[in-house]
Amino acid sequence: MSFSVLSDIDHVAIAVRSLEEGIETYRTLLEREPEVEIVEEQGVRVAAFPLEHGRVELLEPLDEDSPVAAFLERHGEGLHHVAFRTGDADEALDRAARSGLEPLNDAARPGAGGYRIGFLHPNDLHGVLVEMAQPPGGNGGSDGDV
Amino acid sequence: MSFSVLSDIDHVAIAVRSLEEGIETYRTLLEREPEVEIVEEQGVRVAAFPLEHGRVELLEPLDEDSPVAAFLERHGEGLHHVAFRTGDADEALDRAARSGLEPLNDAARPGAGGYRIGFLHPNDLHGVLVEMAQPPGGNGGSDGDV
Repeated sequence: MSFSVLSDIDHVAIAVRSLEEGIETYRTLLEREPEVEIVEEQGVRVAAFPLEHGRVELLEPLDEDSPVAAFLERHGEGLHHVAFRTGDADEALDRAARSGLEPLNDAARPGAGGYRIGFLHPNDLHGVLVEMAQPPGGNGGSDGDV
Repeated sequence: MSFSVLSDIDHVAIAVRSLEEGIETYRTLLEREPEVEIVEEQGVRVAAFPLEHGRVELLEPLDEDSPVAAFLERHGEGLHHVAFRTGDADEALDRAARSGLEPLNDAARPGAGGYRIGFLHPNDLHGVLVEMAQPPGGNGGSDGDV
């Protein structure tokens, strides 16, 4: 049973109440401009700051039904999940299930930036919500930058 | 005022109660062996799983006085901080202070793996504890892998 499909940190995601305030802060810290995108499927507006090989994503809930709204209610602002890059999000979810980890999705779904993504339950991962993130058009495997 | 010294995600750190149980889980997920190290200065035992350009670190408190013990008491297990790679942790702390962000350390200190590190207060960063991480011997700047 192999998870070598998880090659690198794709991004860390931070739940914020106001995307505008979050952008102001992380623009100062990272000295970069983010790309802003609405991801209806996840119920969020996302600001993604590109780094050399990974990204920082700020997540603002679209409405009160967003899972990120529930997270903010329970925990306040802060680190929401970590995403690992994979060449095949469906295969990664499948392998996780066969290893006894609990996927939150039966199959990969559309994410921000044309990604295909799936999540694993934090209960199996010492409290960490883990995303499997398959870049668009791409092999996210061991051959380096994508 | 420039923060271009922060080039990439160096690692994400996860607070765990038992390093052995954490290692078992993340070895299954990441299919890699970690390096284990005690970092007295931070009051933790660390298991670091190397990825293509970053790392996942599991942190177990050395004793009840460890800041990670306090974190576990308050939040339970989960994402503890994110570290950004820099060529000069002292300069990064300095620039942060001049930008109005609050360093938790006056100067960089020894971290795991020969790093020099400093932290910024989560209150200024939407609930995220941010580490500036200067790799050993090195320029962690824009010239890629270190």
